[in-house]
Amino acid sequence: MTDPLYDKMAVIGCGLIGSSLARAARAHGAVGSIAIADPDAHVRERATALGLGDLVTGDLAEAVADADLVVLATPVGVMEAVAAAIAPHLKPGATLSDVGSVKGAVAQAFARTAPAGVFAIPGHPIAGTELSGPDAGFAELFHNRWTVLTPPAVRDAAFDTAVDRLTRFWQRLGAKVEVMDDRHHDLVLAVTSHLPHLIAYNIVGTAADLEEVTQAEVMKFSAGGFRDFTRIAASDPVMWRDIFIANKDAVLETLGRFTEDLQALSRAIRWGEADKLQELFTRTREIRRGVIALGQESAEPNFGRDRSGSEPDKPA
Amino acid sequence: MTDPLYDKMAVIGCGLIGSSLARAARAHGAVGSIAIADPDAHVRERATALGLGDLVTGDLAEAVADADLVVLATPVGVMEAVAAAIAPHLKPGATLSDVGSVKGAVAQAFARTAPAGVFAIPGHPIAGTELSGPDAGFAELFHNRWTVLTPPAVRDAAFDTAVDRLTRFWQRLGAKVEVMDDRHHDLVLAVTSHLPHLIAYNIVGTAADLEEVTQAEVMKFSAGGFRDFTRIAASDPVMWRDIFIANKDAVLETLGRFTEDLQALSRAIRWGEADKLQELFTRTREIRRGVIALGQESAEPNFGRDRSGSEPDKPA
Repeated sequence: MTDPLYDKMAVIGCGLIGSSLARAARAHGAVGSIAIADPDAHVRERATALGLGDLVTGDLAEAVADADLVVLATPVGVMEAVAAAIAPHLKPGATLSDVGSVKGAVAQAFARTAPAGVFAIPGHPIAGTELSGPDAGFAELFHNRWTVLTPPAVRDAAFDTAVDRLTRFWQRLGAKVEVMDDRHHDLVLAVTSHLPHLIAYNIVGTAADLEEVTQAEVMKFSAGGFRDFTRIAASDPVMWRDIFIANKDAVLETLGRFTEDLQALSRAIRWGEADKLQELFTRTREIRRGVIALGQESAEPNFGRDRSGSEPDKPA
Repeated sequence: MTDPLYDKMAVIGCGLIGSSLARAARAHGAVGSIAIADPDAHVRERATALGLGDLVTGDLAEAVADADLVVLATPVGVMEAVAAAIAPHLKPGATLSDVGSVKGAVAQAFARTAPAGVFAIPGHPIAGTELSGPDAGFAELFHNRWTVLTPPAVRDAAFDTAVDRLTRFWQRLGAKVEVMDDRHHDLVLAVTSHLPHLIAYNIVGTAADLEEVTQAEVMKFSAGGFRDFTRIAASDPVMWRDIFIANKDAVLETLGRFTEDLQALSRAIRWGEADKLQELFTRTREIRRGVIALGQESAEPNFGRDRSGSEPDKPA
């Protein structure tokens, strides 16, 4: 467990995830040395002050030189440009990965830019908070969370070895790893993450635009359920802008289903169809029990003590 | 602070809220004695075992006899029937209130059933969890939470005194109290609570029906945002069925606005309008800051340590 899996790791982009990755890799001895590149001087200053890397630089070529693992931790929308910029400087045999929330677009960007002899393995750690920037990171962020890797389906033995090593790297950081087709990843995440964020952004926007209800009232009485949406809708705007555009097809498809279901639900309310409403609400409660049974709450030490999230419950 | 505000309180319905009300009133010495009525023998058994009331009964008349404060803590849909059943047994000068999430319908039910000389003051403590039943209650549930009271606009001095006493009762339990018109309450809550729950129920249902993504996958990767929705959508089905039907007009109105906004957002994604998306997402982030600034998080001791709620954030 103590031998580093990569001699040198380069992290491009030092926000919440990039910073957490550097901290976690160091804490678990997963890499020998860490180079961090970020275009923002203030971010570099914080990364240096926090001691996140052995090298902190604005120069991409310098960061990736001799790196055995290069991880892009930038918004999805700039990944292709970054991948193209570092391509001439990548070490033969290096592994190129990322932490973006969309995988099809990243796989295509890597396919278009990565030189032969580099193992391009898109990745997505499903973990985060609504906070941003290098100071928000922490070494335990990936602990007991899933990281999905989406390598090409057809690969040789050397590529298999690279996938295996990246798998062990994430496991060393405490993550659970699943290998998946990138298109399937994008559909699954459209449902479990992208659509929920879209809906949260939308409802918070709708509430802000109401003329009959003041914004102060909305905030004041947000404990009734709305507050959870404001937290989700506080996530990084640029990151999410890029996700919706990069995963447009899957997001619009799941949004279409959601809208159809919402129309049916709306009609059930309009027509006072009590039985239909109760049946749906009972079914969704079962799904929650499934989430808990699967242990998805286990990494959340506060669950069960956060008693403030939803509306009053009364006996049936 | 130690004198009881009411000699005897009767709580009708001993679920999460009724049970919490009994515990809180006892803990803070807000009432002299407590009678609890519930139609469910198992609930009565638990209430007795937990020592929640001086009297635990299935007989409404017995519970409300001589009570100075009667609080209905049943689903909204049965409140009129319960109010009608207890009407002949209410003590003259007693205060009749409730904890329902819809206030217009309850005000009408009280107006139709409460005898003259009884002060009918609908109320709504905006607090809760997704759990149900007498065992789920706790005395601190209302602490630092808002309770909204919606008494009739036109009232005499005696009625004012009754509203004042009920206000002090909730304050004694740790709540902040606001007096509001019932129609306005129903519109505000449609936005801050009812619509969020409707959306959460809908998205969890949509996810469960997808053929291309298994339910196991949805649960497994629910940390991406979906998990928050499963928690909200785990709230009591009967309670919520009644809320949507009782607050139909305000819910459908806010749902209509939400749907219009969602169509515009959908088009922005389809057309790749990056600036428009970023602008909305930046605005909603500001609203979150408003929620935090208003101290709506202060009653939630775990906030800031729950790092598992949303998607990874990366530097802009």
